[in-house]
Amino acid sequence: MIEDKIKELGYELPEAPKPLAAYIPALKVNDLVFTAGQLPSINGELKFRGKVGAEIGIEEGAKAAEICALNCLSVIKSVVGSLDKIEQVVKLTVFVNSADYFIDQPKVANGASELLSKIFGNKGKHVRSAVGVNELPLNAPIEIEMVVRI
Amino acid sequence: MIEDKIKELGYELPEAPKPLAAYIPALKVNDLVFTAGQLPSINGELKFRGKVGAEIGIEEGAKAAEICALNCLSVIKSVVGSLDKIEQVVKLTVFVNSADYFIDQPKVANGASELLSKIFGNKGKHVRSAVGVNELPLNAPIEIEMVVRI
Amino acid sequence: MIEDKIKELGYELPEAPKPLAAYIPALKVNDLVFTAGQLPSINGELKFRGKVGAEIGIEEGAKAAEICALNCLSVIKSVVGSLDKIEQVVKLTVFVNSADYFIDQPKVANGASELLSKIFGNKGKHVRSAVGVNELPLNAPIEIEMVVRI
Repeated sequence: MIEDKIKELGYELPEAPKPLAAYIPALKVNDLVFTAGQLPSINGELKFRGKVGAEIGIEEGAKAAEICALNCLSVIKSVVGSLDKIEQVVKLTVFVNSADYFIDQPKVANGASELLSKIFGNKGKHVRSAVGVNELPLNAPIEIEMVVRI
Repeated sequence: MIEDKIKELGYELPEAPKPLAAYIPALKVNDLVFTAGQLPSINGELKFRGKVGAEIGIEEGAKAAEICALNCLSVIKSVVGSLDKIEQVVKLTVFVNSADYFIDQPKVANGASELLSKIFGNKGKHVRSAVGVNELPLNAPIEIEMVVRI
Repeated sequence: MIEDKIKELGYELPEAPKPLAAYIPALKVNDLVFTAGQLPSINGELKFRGKVGAEIGIEEGAKAAEICALNCLSVIKSVVGSLDKIEQVVKLTVFVNSADYFIDQPKVANGASELLSKIFGNKGKHVRSAVGVNELPLNAPIEIEMVVRI
C-alpha cells in the first residue's frame, strides 16, 4: 500500500490543497491524471517562502519540493481514490523561484524526484523539467505539476 | 452552441492568430488538442504589453488572460472545426511576465479560468499552473497554452 | 531513414545525455513519448552558456536550441529504438534564459522548430510555447522538452 510506504518513510500525505483560484486540483483524462501546480503548503499554510539561493538554501528548497510532490499525490488521490492505482509517475515540471545566479534547480527538484522513487520504486521514475523563474504565487520557492498514469 | 455563449457573455472569438514562427497553432493527438502558447493579441496586434505589477495591473492582466484564452479556443476551432466538440478543458499553463515582487499570478490567470468556466460550465473546469517569468515574446504580459479533450 | 536525413543536413545525433539528477530522460506512455528537459550539451559538456540577449546572441541561442532538439531526439531514440518510429512531433516547450528586455524568445526557439521541420517534414510540425526565464540549470541558455507521437 503506497500510503503505508509514505508513512514508513517518515512522511505524511497532506490534505489535498484547495485551489488558490478558479480551477480544479487534478483531472483524469483517459488513463492519465494531470495535477494543477502545487505549492509547498500544508493545511493551507506555505511551509517555505522566498527565492532559492537567497532567502532559502538548496536543502530547504529540496524539502519544499518534497511537500509539493506530496501535495500532487494528495490531489491525485482525491480524484482516483487511492494512490495504489498509480501505475507510473510520468512527468514533473518543477518551477524554482530562483535568485540571480542560482543555477542548481536540479538539486532542488531532486527533493521531489528522489521521494517519488522511494515511494513508488520503478513506477516512480519520471521525466522532468526543472527551470528557474523570477516569481511564484504567494512567494513560494517552488511550484510542481505532475502527470501520472493510472 | 459555444460560440453563441461566448457572444452572450460579451466576448468575441478572435481570428486564429498566426504563429510567430516555425510552428503550428494547434495539434490534435488522439482525443486531445494541444495549443501553442497564445499571447493577448487580436488581429495580430498585442492588446497589452509589459510586466504585470509594473506596467500593467492585475485587472488588465486578467483581461489579457481572457484574450489569451479566447485565442487558444480560436486555434482549437481552426483544427477541429467547432468549439462544440470540446468535451473538457483539461489544462492551462499560464506564464505571467512578472515585475519583481509580483506574486499574484493566480489572480491574473483567473481571467482565463473564470471565462472558461462561464463559457463551458463543468466542461470548462481545468487544472492549471500559473508561474511568473521575467520576459515573454514581444513583451507580452501573459502567455497561455491549453489542452482540451474533444 | 531519419538518422540519414539528420546527417544529410550536416548534423549529428548526440549520445543520449545522462539525466542531471534523479529522473529518466524519456518515457513512453501509450503512443506518446515525453522527454525530460534537455540542455544544449554534447557528451556531457554544455556548448553554450549564459543569458540570451546578454552573454550570447539570438543566432547562438538558435544554435543552442538545435542541440537541445537533437538531444530530445536522442533520448527518444534511447526509449523507442529508432527515430523512424516518430509519427508526429507534437509539442515543444522552450525555456529561454533571458536577459532583461530580451523578448525574441521565438527567434531563438526557431532553431529547434526549423530543424525539426527539415528533418521530419510535415511530421515535424508541432505546437510550441517559448517563454523567458531568469535562470536555468548550469547557466544553460535554453532548456527544451519535447512530446512526440510514435
